[in-house]
Amino acid sequence: MSDTNQVPVTVLGLGMMGAALASAFVKNGNRTTVWNRSTEKADALVQQGAVLAPDVKDAIAASPVVVACVSTYDVLTELLSGAEDELRGKVVVNLTSGTPDEARSFAARAEEIGVRYLDGAVMAVPQLIGLEHALVFYAGSRELFAEHEELLKLLAGNSVHLGTDAGVAMIYDLGLLSLLWSTLAGYTHAVALVQAAGASAEAFTPFASTWLEHVISPALPQSAKEIDAGDFATEVASLDTNKAAIAHLVATNRQLGVENDFTAAIQALIERRVGQGFGAHSIASLVEAFKKS
Amino acid sequence: MSDTNQVPVTVLGLGMMGAALASAFVKNGNRTTVWNRSTEKADALVQQGAVLAPDVKDAIAASPVVVACVSTYDVLTELLSGAEDELRGKVVVNLTSGTPDEARSFAARAEEIGVRYLDGAVMAVPQLIGLEHALVFYAGSRELFAEHEELLKLLAGNSVHLGTDAGVAMIYDLGLLSLLWSTLAGYTHAVALVQAAGASAEAFTPFASTWLEHVISPALPQSAKEIDAGDFATEVASLDTNKAAIAHLVATNRQLGVENDFTAAIQALIERRVGQGFGAHSIASLVEAFKKS
Ligand SMILES: NC(=O)c1ccc[n+]([C@@H]2O[C@H](COP(=O)([O-])OP(=O)(O)OC[C@H]3O[C@@H](n4cnc5c(N)ncnc54)[C@H](OP(=O)(O)O)[C@@H]3O)[C@@H](O)[C@H]2O)c1
Ligand SMILES: NC(=O)c1ccc[n+]([C@@H]2O[C@H](COP(=O)([O-])OP(=O)(O)OC[C@H]3O[C@@H](n4cnc5c(N)ncnc54)[C@H](OP(=O)(O)O)[C@@H]3O)[C@@H](O)[C@H]2O)c1
Repeated sequence: MSDTNQVPVTVLGLGMMGAALASAFVKNGNRTTVWNRSTEKADALVQQGAVLAPDVKDAIAASPVVVACVSTYDVLTELLSGAEDELRGKVVVNLTSGTPDEARSFAARAEEIGVRYLDGAVMAVPQLIGLEHALVFYAGSRELFAEHEELLKLLAGNSVHLGTDAGVAMIYDLGLLSLLWSTLAGYTHAVALVQAAGASAEAFTPFASTWLEHVISPALPQSAKEIDAGDFATEVASLDTNKAAIAHLVATNRQLGVENDFTAAIQALIERRVGQGFGAHSIASLVEAFKKS
Repeated sequence: MSDTNQVPVTVLGLGMMGAALASAFVKNGNRTTVWNRSTEKADALVQQGAVLAPDVKDAIAASPVVVACVSTYDVLTELLSGAEDELRGKVVVNLTSGTPDEARSFAARAEEIGVRYLDGAVMAVPQLIGLEHALVFYAGSRELFAEHEELLKLLAGNSVHLGTDAGVAMIYDLGLLSLLWSTLAGYTHAVALVQAAGASAEAFTPFASTWLEHVISPALPQSAKEIDAGDFATEVASLDTNKAAIAHLVATNRQLGVENDFTAAIQALIERRVGQGFGAHSIASLVEAFKKS
């Protein structure tokens, strides 16, 4: 254990995530001060050795580093208003989720007050906090991140600084969430189809996992290259081919009584690009369908 | 090499996929007869040792096993009409893509004629044909599959018989395609967000791959269990939580000028279930949103 990761820390917010963050600090032996609106959520942590502060100001005053994790930026803004004196000179690491713009406004306000601010996005469930492969994105000062990297790695071994734009952690967060929701919507849609045909989710799912891991994920680097180069020539599968194939899916949804709106939204993206004359392009070119003209 | 995988075969259709299938047989030393509407597509195969049949009837008559791979079931139905005498007693393995209903009608017609029929779905690009991990789903008689399994494994090492319902290979095919399109739509949407914030596809994509392989895919077996049990109680992430989070994505799409329709389709699924009183359920319960009441 080094000096940097033994710095006293305060954790504001002890919801499912905040409690996991505080617990990781307590387990490492950091002097950990906690605060939560509903004080009973501190009980287990206090038993493990955390100190419950009576109010937000005291909590902030107790440590040079303050980690915040509440439901929204608005909630945090309200909690901190009036505590400007205590905040001045502190390091605030905000792991609350929101939009890139909320992160940027918050960072601008932090700078005004004289707070050294890092914005972060936790890409893990509370159960993974403290583990080597847990991922947290950070945005803000590169020096500030480097200074506290060891401390932050107590929360997530895979702590990644993305850039100095305070909004970039939230952007990557929303990007991965979009991928999560899309994939799970596609997966549950697929299971609904398979169930309508009398098969079980359990029978189908190993194929879905293999498909994600060994077919789809390995294809992404090539898609990224095409997108960054803006060159979507393909000899594998064109949008024209995909347009024909997705029509089979639409017909089958209708025929099996499976809700078609989600499939229709994807079909619309493909057909928009084909309609604009890009039928020979690869499916990675759908990125262009997301850019409003 | 055993006797079973040295059986003479005919391949009907030498498009990108059909040519790859024929080539795998030729490479294995099977006497391979081929036919294609545009005869020039047979040239390379004939040089490798395949025999070009002058018409469909001759092609069928040449071998006990006929593998068909043309653009649609309708095309294949038309090609085979009038060849009923040649088809009688043959094994037909149809790797043309379509809907489950097309597969079932085709299988019924094959049975009438006296054809021993397997329906198949190729879950691989032509470049993967012949490889150990290439996946092809089969539907139809279990005995017929077992009898020709070794031969079929020349095309794809991972040849899987799913069931006797002739439509089930097409159902699984459409299920995996739905997952593919959804995931790629989510990925390209994520990249559009990241690009709008000034980052590159290349910088973001390694995180997308890790997320798919190490977070999303490993979560699917638990989702499958919940779906098959119809029990969506969760302590990880409820639909209520996802509803709040996807609102951030919608706001960010709007603010960055990224097309929101695809995200809105997912949001509608989440909100439908929350509106029906299932906000405490896990995200796997979206499967219910796909079932029309
Ligand atoms: N859980 C996850 O898997 C996960 C993963 C990644 C990111 N996140 C993000 O982490 C943040 C916290 O999530 P969570 O799972 O810990 O949520 P949670 O369990 O619902 O906790 C919410 C926290 O915010 C506090 N809070 C809400 N409104 C407040 C108010 N008006 N005044 C004071 N405190 C208020 C709550 O205090 P009370 O206890 O008094 O209600 C609690 O500490 C969210 O932004 C979430 O998106 C969560
Ligand atoms: N390529 C892939 O990655 C892939 C993957 C999985 C499944 N599949 C499925 O495999 C099947 C074939 O795909 P492909 O990639 O080989 O397509 P393709 O390259 O477009 O070839 C289409 C084939 O169908 C024939 N055809 C079309 N209309 C015809 C007609 N009216 N009469 C006679 N023949 C006709 C074509 O003959 P001509 O050469 O004379 O035009 C050609 O042999 C499709 O169902 C596709 O969905 C393809």
